[in-house]
Amino acid sequence: MNAESTTNLKEESENCLFCKIVKGQIPADIVSQGDNWLAFRDINPQAPSHILVIPKNHVANVTECNEAAELGSLFQAASGVARDENLDQGFRLVVNTGEHGGQTVFHLHIHILGGRSLTWPPG
Amino acid sequence: MNAESTTNLKEESENCLFCKIVKGQIPADIVSQGDNWLAFRDINPQAPSHILVIPKNHVANVTECNEAAELGSLFQAASGVARDENLDQGFRLVVNTGEHGGQTVFHLHIHILGGRSLTWPPG
Repeated sequence: MNAESTTNLKEESENCLFCKIVKGQIPADIVSQGDNWLAFRDINPQAPSHILVIPKNHVANVTECNEAAELGSLFQAASGVARDENLDQGFRLVVNTGEHGGQTVFHLHIHILGGRSLTWPPG
Repeated sequence: MNAESTTNLKEESENCLFCKIVKGQIPADIVSQGDNWLAFRDINPQAPSHILVIPKNHVANVTECNEAAELGSLFQAASGVARDENLDQGFRLVVNTGEHGGQTVFHLHIHILGGRSLTWPPG
């Protein structure tokens, strides 16, 4: 990473809604957290359980995560959150990237949806 | 893993549709592959691009994947497939687990959907 991209990442992070939630500058209904991830309820839930799992460091989207173990840990965290939410009947994980994906906050987040039968297609 | 669970996993794998695709016993429209993953087009596409990315070894669902790096690599592979599919305008990744999630094949798979604006909610 060169000096320019580091500066851009810092600026991106300073203006990022989810980074502000991580820092406690904006309130959220936090479900649980680990050293590197935070889980909180979606402010506009689309299912009885609708939780977002995000990395605590700023990563714009899934294509920007270069560390396989870091990315895998985030999905394992999401699985654990679903288990703790008692979603024994199942759940859906959704990750939106870019405009066609419907991404609205440019900080990587995994949607966990459960508590009802999700329909198909997924959007 | 004890002897019984090894036997169960072997039986599960022998009867698994996606394991049969990996072994070449059932044809599929294969897009690309790596040492540990395979990408092929969904037989019932829900978007102009609808590709499944699966691990070559049998894993029933995302909650059963204990190796963070392995799981992360699978999502990185999905990102790479989306890039190679020219989904520059964005895409959605979807992972279904269990009945509520709408999982129909019990071999972990990541749906990549793109080529149109995906709607919300995701099912």
